[in-house]
Amino acid sequence: MASRILRLRFLASRRGRHRPTDLVRQRRGHLSVRCDEAWFREQSRNGSDIGMRKIIVVTGASNGFGRLASNALARAGHTVYASMRETTGRNASRAAEVKAFARQHSADLHAIELDVASQESVNAAIAEIISRNNQLDVVVHGANHTAYGPAEAFTPEQLAQLYDTNVLGAQRVNRAALPQLRKQGQGLLVWISSSGTRGGTPPYLGPYFATKAAMDALAVSYAGELARWGIETTIVVPGSFTKGTNYYAHSGRPADAVRAEEYADGPTADISEITLRGLAALRPTDADPQAVADAIVEVIDTPFGSRPFRVHFEPSDDGAAIVNGVADRARAELLQLIGLEDILKPTIIG
Amino acid sequence: MASRILRLRFLASRRGRHRPTDLVRQRRGHLSVRCDEAWFREQSRNGSDIGMRKIIVVTGASNGFGRLASNALARAGHTVYASMRETTGRNASRAAEVKAFARQHSADLHAIELDVASQESVNAAIAEIISRNNQLDVVVHGANHTAYGPAEAFTPEQLAQLYDTNVLGAQRVNRAALPQLRKQGQGLLVWISSSGTRGGTPPYLGPYFATKAAMDALAVSYAGELARWGIETTIVVPGSFTKGTNYYAHSGRPADAVRAEEYADGPTADISEITLRGLAALRPTDADPQAVADAIVEVIDTPFGSRPFRVHFEPSDDGAAIVNGVADRARAELLQLIGLEDILKPTIIG
Repeated sequence: MASRILRLRFLASRRGRHRPTDLVRQRRGHLSVRCDEAWFREQSRNGSDIGMRKIIVVTGASNGFGRLASNALARAGHTVYASMRETTGRNASRAAEVKAFARQHSADLHAIELDVASQESVNAAIAEIISRNNQLDVVVHGANHTAYGPAEAFTPEQLAQLYDTNVLGAQRVNRAALPQLRKQGQGLLVWISSSGTRGGTPPYLGPYFATKAAMDALAVSYAGELARWGIETTIVVPGSFTKGTNYYAHSGRPADAVRAEEYADGPTADISEITLRGLAALRPTDADPQAVADAIVEVIDTPFGSRPFRVHFEPSDDGAAIVNGVADRARAELLQLIGLEDILKPTIIG
Repeated sequence: MASRILRLRFLASRRGRHRPTDLVRQRRGHLSVRCDEAWFREQSRNGSDIGMRKIIVVTGASNGFGRLASNALARAGHTVYASMRETTGRNASRAAEVKAFARQHSADLHAIELDVASQESVNAAIAEIISRNNQLDVVVHGANHTAYGPAEAFTPEQLAQLYDTNVLGAQRVNRAALPQLRKQGQGLLVWISSSGTRGGTPPYLGPYFATKAAMDALAVSYAGELARWGIETTIVVPGSFTKGTNYYAHSGRPADAVRAEEYADGPTADISEITLRGLAALRPTDADPQAVADAIVEVIDTPFGSRPFRVHFEPSDDGAAIVNGVADRARAELLQLIGLEDILKPTIIG
């Protein structure tokens, strides 16, 4: 391969730093240029991954933010593995859509079988990606299930199931992918969290928020533990969107119908209606989940070491950005106090 | 029974509201008086539970905060079920200690078999308590396991196990206890959270913090959903203490020893030592976990409807109080905005 795609946001200021051979694409202030391979090799030796085409795996790419992100990343010129389970079963049409999208946009986008509930499946998918590309740059943790209803009406088994998808799934993917990323001495984890874990916390999303709070906490811990291995972390924090993400439509419902009815008939009878109506009223009608996908593209195209620790998208302005701002500051302060301020940023391993 | 124990913090201001028969105990500004039963019945009819002896179940009472809290609550005059698993097995000596403590302090304290990992065991224990007392006033969620090590070196099964104890355990107890509390139209849930979910988040506690963040999120959701049933919530947020709680001593360790060694030999080699030394240096040497137990007593003795939503104990001043303050404010604001401000406080059901 004689050249690679380079994407730069501020081409003018970086004109001296690369040798473009031809202009590929210009979109939303992004200018993509084709550069020769030697320049990329030099950048890579210098520890920079600026503008390089990344090898990316996105989990939960059959729908929601995972789907939007994998499409947006592929259109931006990256090699993207849109991972999902049952690519030959109930997601066969989604897998076909991925193929069609790739053809239509001349994108390097591939559906790949990966069930986050199975370590074996995860291992096979990650191994396949690494064997095809000899590297893996970015993991986007997008797999996510939701649940809606009174917390008391969910069985412990339902809570365990939700934790399995939203948290243990990421753990399985990390355990499969991180040895490669650590070996490379450079990589990026993007976690799709939720504003509900830190912001307004409306009723009837308890079991879901519990898993997202856990995922966010795990992401924060991983960030510090991986920094010296040259692995960067960005936590994307979306709020609730009215369209595109099926926030409630595909939500799990309480298995204990008797208990759920007690809440529906009791003093809490109108809680659900008030909550859904209230949240809908707070959301701007033009809140578009595509903005979350576009932000993920931007994060990945930001130079290594300069990426934001968090990016928020709260159409309802539910306060999570402020809460997380204070929390991340408290974390930074503690790490400084105990002499670990270096793990606030990934080490550049030359 | 002709009289009950009444504990009041500000006796002078309440002198006109009760009929003390004799002074029982004075300690740390608390004055305990024996009042006649008729007065208590009247208070109860008025929807007040001020100063009444409560029927309390504490989970995880074999050690840590659960143990300290159950002893402190029993000494304060409440009927306390110190629940733990294996009361005839490996915790037999702990169960015997409970009995000895009860005798020594003339306290109404009982060890009871309750394994938070088993719905059957939980159901049996809660049913036994209700059948003995015909009521249950307070549940203290104290069951807690810790884990220490690089997140990547823990298997998903270990994370699931930790979630089972720290989160699903509380869910099982809630599902057993809440129907009774809702029927009574009055009750209190006390959740023992952790400052690590919102404060400094030092490394190597990721899987543990994930479960505590989840537990805290679930507690917040339950608080709103239970308020109209007359059930109050207090979340107690301790930081790390050097003594008495076995914070690290009994922690789970990563099952993947190979992965753990990579972290111990790699660029992260000194992270653990720096973290433990740094945290120890930040902690005041006189940080006493008994303060947490005393605070739980105080919370329970505070009149219904006036209890604090959170109580913090951070010997290291790790910032969780500030983060939670902002988060709880964001929650209050959202509930007000969507017209659910009433669920910020429990309804007094007359």
